[in-house]
Amino acid sequence: MKKIVLGFSGGLDTTYCVKYLSEEKGYEVHSVIVNTGGFSADELTKIEAHAYKLGVKTHTTVDAVKGYYDRIIKYLVFGNVLKNNTYPLSVSAERLVQALHIAEHVKALNATAVAHGSTGAGNDQVRFDMVFNIMIPGVEIITPIRDLRLSREEEIAYLKAKGVDMNFEKAAYSINKGLWGTSVGGRETLSSKGMLPEEAWPTQVTASESREVKLHFEKGELTAVDDKTFGHPSEAIQYLQTIAGAYGIGRDIHVGDTIIGIKGRVGFEAAAPVVILKAHHALEKHVLTKWQLSWKDTIANFYGNWLHEGQILDPVMRDMEAFMQSAQENVTGDVFVQLLPYRFQVIGIESAYDLMSSKFGKYGEMNNGWSGEDVRGFSKIFGNQTMIWHQVKESND
Amino acid sequence: MKKIVLGFSGGLDTTYCVKYLSEEKGYEVHSVIVNTGGFSADELTKIEAHAYKLGVKTHTTVDAVKGYYDRIIKYLVFGNVLKNNTYPLSVSAERLVQALHIAEHVKALNATAVAHGSTGAGNDQVRFDMVFNIMIPGVEIITPIRDLRLSREEEIAYLKAKGVDMNFEKAAYSINKGLWGTSVGGRETLSSKGMLPEEAWPTQVTASESREVKLHFEKGELTAVDDKTFGHPSEAIQYLQTIAGAYGIGRDIHVGDTIIGIKGRVGFEAAAPVVILKAHHALEKHVLTKWQLSWKDTIANFYGNWLHEGQILDPVMRDMEAFMQSAQENVTGDVFVQLLPYRFQVIGIESAYDLMSSKFGKYGEMNNGWSGEDVRGFSKIFGNQTMIWHQVKESND
Amino acid sequence: MKKIVLGFSGGLDTTYCVKYLSEEKGYEVHSVIVNTGGFSADELTKIEAHAYKLGVKTHTTVDAVKGYYDRIIKYLVFGNVLKNNTYPLSVSAERLVQALHIAEHVKALNATAVAHGSTGAGNDQVRFDMVFNIMIPGVEIITPIRDLRLSREEEIAYLKAKGVDMNFEKAAYSINKGLWGTSVGGRETLSSKGMLPEEAWPTQVTASESREVKLHFEKGELTAVDDKTFGHPSEAIQYLQTIAGAYGIGRDIHVGDTIIGIKGRVGFEAAAPVVILKAHHALEKHVLTKWQLSWKDTIANFYGNWLHEGQILDPVMRDMEAFMQSAQENVTGDVFVQLLPYRFQVIGIESAYDLMSSKFGKYGEMNNGWSGEDVRGFSKIFGNQTMIWHQVKESND
Amino acid sequence: MKKIVLGFSGGLDTTYCVKYLSEEKGYEVHSVIVNTGGFSADELTKIEAHAYKLGVKTHTTVDAVKGYYDRIIKYLVFGNVLKNNTYPLSVSAERLVQALHIAEHVKALNATAVAHGSTGAGNDQVRFDMVFNIMIPGVEIITPIRDLRLSREEEIAYLKAKGVDMNFEKAAYSINKGLWGTSVGGRETLSSKGMLPEEAWPTQVTASESREVKLHFEKGELTAVDDKTFGHPSEAIQYLQTIAGAYGIGRDIHVGDTIIGIKGRVGFEAAAPVVILKAHHALEKHVLTKWQLSWKDTIANFYGNWLHEGQILDPVMRDMEAFMQSAQENVTGDVFVQLLPYRFQVIGIESAYDLMSSKFGKYGEMNNGWSGEDVRGFSKIFGNQTMIWHQVKESND
Repeated sequence: MKKIVLGFSGGLDTTYCVKYLSEEKGYEVHSVIVNTGGFSADELTKIEAHAYKLGVKTHTTVDAVKGYYDRIIKYLVFGNVLKNNTYPLSVSAERLVQALHIAEHVKALNATAVAHGSTGAGNDQVRFDMVFNIMIPGVEIITPIRDLRLSREEEIAYLKAKGVDMNFEKAAYSINKGLWGTSVGGRETLSSKGMLPEEAWPTQVTASESREVKLHFEKGELTAVDDKTFGHPSEAIQYLQTIAGAYGIGRDIHVGDTIIGIKGRVGFEAAAPVVILKAHHALEKHVLTKWQLSWKDTIANFYGNWLHEGQILDPVMRDMEAFMQSAQENVTGDVFVQLLPYRFQVIGIESAYDLMSSKFGKYGEMNNGWSGEDVRGFSKIFGNQTMIWHQVKESND
Repeated sequence: MKKIVLGFSGGLDTTYCVKYLSEEKGYEVHSVIVNTGGFSADELTKIEAHAYKLGVKTHTTVDAVKGYYDRIIKYLVFGNVLKNNTYPLSVSAERLVQALHIAEHVKALNATAVAHGSTGAGNDQVRFDMVFNIMIPGVEIITPIRDLRLSREEEIAYLKAKGVDMNFEKAAYSINKGLWGTSVGGRETLSSKGMLPEEAWPTQVTASESREVKLHFEKGELTAVDDKTFGHPSEAIQYLQTIAGAYGIGRDIHVGDTIIGIKGRVGFEAAAPVVILKAHHALEKHVLTKWQLSWKDTIANFYGNWLHEGQILDPVMRDMEAFMQSAQENVTGDVFVQLLPYRFQVIGIESAYDLMSSKFGKYGEMNNGWSGEDVRGFSKIFGNQTMIWHQVKESND
Repeated sequence: MKKIVLGFSGGLDTTYCVKYLSEEKGYEVHSVIVNTGGFSADELTKIEAHAYKLGVKTHTTVDAVKGYYDRIIKYLVFGNVLKNNTYPLSVSAERLVQALHIAEHVKALNATAVAHGSTGAGNDQVRFDMVFNIMIPGVEIITPIRDLRLSREEEIAYLKAKGVDMNFEKAAYSINKGLWGTSVGGRETLSSKGMLPEEAWPTQVTASESREVKLHFEKGELTAVDDKTFGHPSEAIQYLQTIAGAYGIGRDIHVGDTIIGIKGRVGFEAAAPVVILKAHHALEKHVLTKWQLSWKDTIANFYGNWLHEGQILDPVMRDMEAFMQSAQENVTGDVFVQLLPYRFQVIGIESAYDLMSSKFGKYGEMNNGWSGEDVRGFSKIFGNQTMIWHQVKESND
Repeated sequence: MKKIVLGFSGGLDTTYCVKYLSEEKGYEVHSVIVNTGGFSADELTKIEAHAYKLGVKTHTTVDAVKGYYDRIIKYLVFGNVLKNNTYPLSVSAERLVQALHIAEHVKALNATAVAHGSTGAGNDQVRFDMVFNIMIPGVEIITPIRDLRLSREEEIAYLKAKGVDMNFEKAAYSINKGLWGTSVGGRETLSSKGMLPEEAWPTQVTASESREVKLHFEKGELTAVDDKTFGHPSEAIQYLQTIAGAYGIGRDIHVGDTIIGIKGRVGFEAAAPVVILKAHHALEKHVLTKWQLSWKDTIANFYGNWLHEGQILDPVMRDMEAFMQSAQENVTGDVFVQLLPYRFQVIGIESAYDLMSSKFGKYGEMNNGWSGEDVRGFSKIFGNQTMIWHQVKESND
């Protein structure tokens, strides 16, 4: 019997896929769910039970949280990546990790086909297709929802006819949760105007008192929060999320370019990611040189966009990671952040690598290490070419 | 008698300069103040009186607000320029306009020297020096405070000895106000850690009720607020400032690279600038193509940094302005912004040029205009080279 | 009867298309040939006769040379565009102009379909498809050779069966000629190693004596050669080609990335384009500032690549053209070039905008306008941040 | 007695410095010469003798060739660096290595001062000053020629008065030779027009027969020439230079931006560097992905310019080197180059990492691995956003 591996979340679309692939297409279905931090143990157990009840041959749960951090999130922090200066790529990044694990599973099972539940209108279809084309070329990719252009109602009708029992109600807002944030889509995000209502946010605001947290970074990675250390940075992120999430921090709506050319709008909440990115950036402003900051920005912008477009396997990404890793050499120190309802502010930093050292002159106050004459000479030379340009131009007017 | 033009603000440093230049150096002093939006009519009158009392030969007040917008601010909006993703260049930009007007004044008076009150530890000395070197080469630049490395106390002692009567008390926070924001320096900004206390902010928070404003942009320029139109965008900015300022929006501390290589930290409040930049960016995300957004960002980052470093007269700046102007062709529409105490959020936009049109497919929902097969083909070709790269690599392993 | 517009060159593929579209598909075929400088009047007459003999309803010849220059070549010169520092985009650029003219023709005739003779393995299919999708969306695109995956032999057999009489012999080298160069493909270009033999080059070397030419540029455009002026820069290019072509200048093999992800290798000869680009660049090095040179390079690299990939209609291209046009303001002057068999060298330039003026100091010899002390101060400040960085680092070691 | 370290070449300027520093300034002079490949053993011996005869306390010869390659040249090859697409940075690069060695010498001798013979009109003064300011801050920098604005004649008069015996004749062309090329300055390079005459080139053309050489690269480094292997890439460069130099390859005149803002023009011959750079680039075009090529170019342009400006110690350079090193992973293979008098051409490459593999489709001929339908879909999606943009625009016209 032909084996197929199916990326499975337990939702309507992938439930449909199990039935369709096994019963209409005659496949032996091997479902796999890759947890990038959004599922509790309890949820994963329920999803497994649901899969077996639908008739999959095997169901596999992959705990990908640490690997997700090591392979992707780390570099998003190094690069302070916010797509269009807004969105921490919460979903984009985890899809790729999921696709990579699914491809590994296909190889391990020696399957001849792979399936995903994407529709024909989003980014995920490209990410899954592309990672599969690259990592397991020759393996057939089957996408029932996209290929059959199925509506929600058609899927439900089919599943009911097959005797499947599950919650068929549509949630008012579709949620996607992971280590690096939660996306929220619904009525307001379908047009160009409208903010999500308070009740739509998965994490409700429960904190009201201002609180200061201290984030410790070691070579660019978050390793401690308020002197509490962690075995792996992904745990520090999750810990910070429990604190900062309660403030309603990191909520916004992102409108951006999908891989397929249309503009898309999506809400998200990402308290820990946004706090970490801003804190990390603040530390970098103190310890990196001007051109390190500038070039890392340039590179990280492309890195984030190219990742968003599913191109994680282009070797240029490894080269950019080498750049970013090198630039983190001195990004070690504490960042102090004040959390308040719906907002936060970076209070300052402490670092042995801080370049803002009064030993070398206090900005706007006193200059040690150079003289006014030095700056006078600098200004002359620094503007020399433009001076010549204007003289030459004037002589032509 | 030798004529000198002095950039004059009426503060301690430039007051010292008048006396020093006339009495110690024998110059006929012509003071000039260039208002970039930070001075009231009343303040300007007092400064003029102060100048004449000090003994200047002439005093000139230049109203530079509109020209400041036309020459610089407009492009900072087009480029969504926030230095290090934080600071709207409030002071950097206005210094250049001041220097340019002072240079014009030197030419008009046929003066042989020009003076400014900068110290040897900040950015402004470079900006003034450089603009003067370029625009009026050969004119001697005299900078008494920098050259004599004077302390505040020495200046006061000298002025008292000369019988000058003015307020010699040092303010707890030094303030610099202009059309594009107000900088605030003080105890907390001198080290790497510390937030300005509530009372240090020049504009205190008086609004408590959430309010929505509608900003109308025409080809990238703010022309109306809540359907109230203005004769010039600088007036729209000032109007919005009166509304948004009361919310304490746009306060932050910026740490960045000075032109002279040290790191400097400065507080600022810039309610209208920050709201306008974010609203403008939101509109652009809807009406520009992916690569327009990306390239304009790249160019604007350099533009902002180079402007900060005083290089406004490099002709590359004109080329970049041509790019940014071209990219504003369709940046027309309304942006809806909700103001709340200490924060704001962009609610959405309406524009005839919105590329997020459901006519062409709804993100994540339904695809019109292309098929699932089209995307399947796209994904194949889009990842083709990386697929080949991995195949070739594998064959070498 | 359904109307179809066919891009027609008179070669085997498009000859097949006429017969296939009219006889198998029942279309009324309107052929169009867009001359971008590669066809003589005589050749165009013969192609027209061939088209009518094949049974097209109408045949149209578009003289696109001047428009090709104005719309594309001009900016390739402004940007000194050589793809991968090698290839002047001879074919890439002209395909787009051809596609744009064909799309105009479809609109003018109100046709419901459009056809091109591209195969499925090259760049041109994407360029034609994409321009048509953008300019005439909804119009069906038919590509018989690609869709039917036809071999040369199958096409010949079909045409012979239909009684078509033409030269069916395959040339040893396939040639594509236009205003901006001639591409040459053949045995040697199909693998990664091998140079085209002397006899394969369309223009044989007939000049042996060294010769100096003077190229005059006005705001970046070639307007005169050896004081001979022209009504349009495209004529200056053609004139220079007759001179420089005889030297075998501008021959090379380009290997580059196709739009579809594979690497492709192609020979080309482009005497006038390569001489013009290097001469123009030499002039720019004298009249532009450092950052104008640097940024124009950065922008032009993307511009060239994006054009190569068929994206001429992305509005970011207009923004980049605005930048490049602005940067040409002072690119006026004479460039002296020595032509020799198989090579050339730029001898120097003369320009009223030359920034290398001894008035401001002679490089390496004498400094006017600044002092050694100025440079000493400059060096101190220029390295200030890196000095601090190393001091801080050392204190941590 | 106060110790000073003097960078010493044995020429007029540094000879003057020895006498001036010891006899006028009372320093104990320690001369040092750093050989970056331009001096023979014999020349070095003569320079040493000359130094001791002038009265230096110690003279040190540093053989820096291998370190020069490892620290700088390697990355110039990785980045295919030609400043302004012309100049391999022959002199710029070696000055920095010299400055670094001299600074080490200052530390080793615990000297309190350092001297170099630069004038006030060139780049070298900035390079030396800056490296000294950064590496040995606090050590006084003395530059007699610059500070005293000495003319050649004044120096000679002084030395003759001091009884110094050396060749005081001025060479028609000033030559600077090193591992990475030889610069040539003289009458023709002082103005914007004029090519160096044949006899001015240090290496005369003696080869007349065309010859093919095979260059082998391992991870981007030249390790063998015609199957002859070398202990260190610097030796491969020197070997290739003996072959290619005889052809007069790599001669040109560079006009570029000096660090101090003026334009400078200099001739150079660099046969091995130019052949290596073009061969390396050809190999990269076959083995790197499109975006690796593009980003490495972008980074290398800045890297080269920033190096030219003396900023080798900015840590951003280390980050860029990490990027470039990573990108060389697969840059392994043979490049075939044909040498001819005054020119050369790259014939092709052979590499196990060649992405131009007919397994995946032959450019322009046949497509394996994807179908015409795939490309049709690709073209649709690839142009989707621009299609929407044009539709939206049209609906507004």
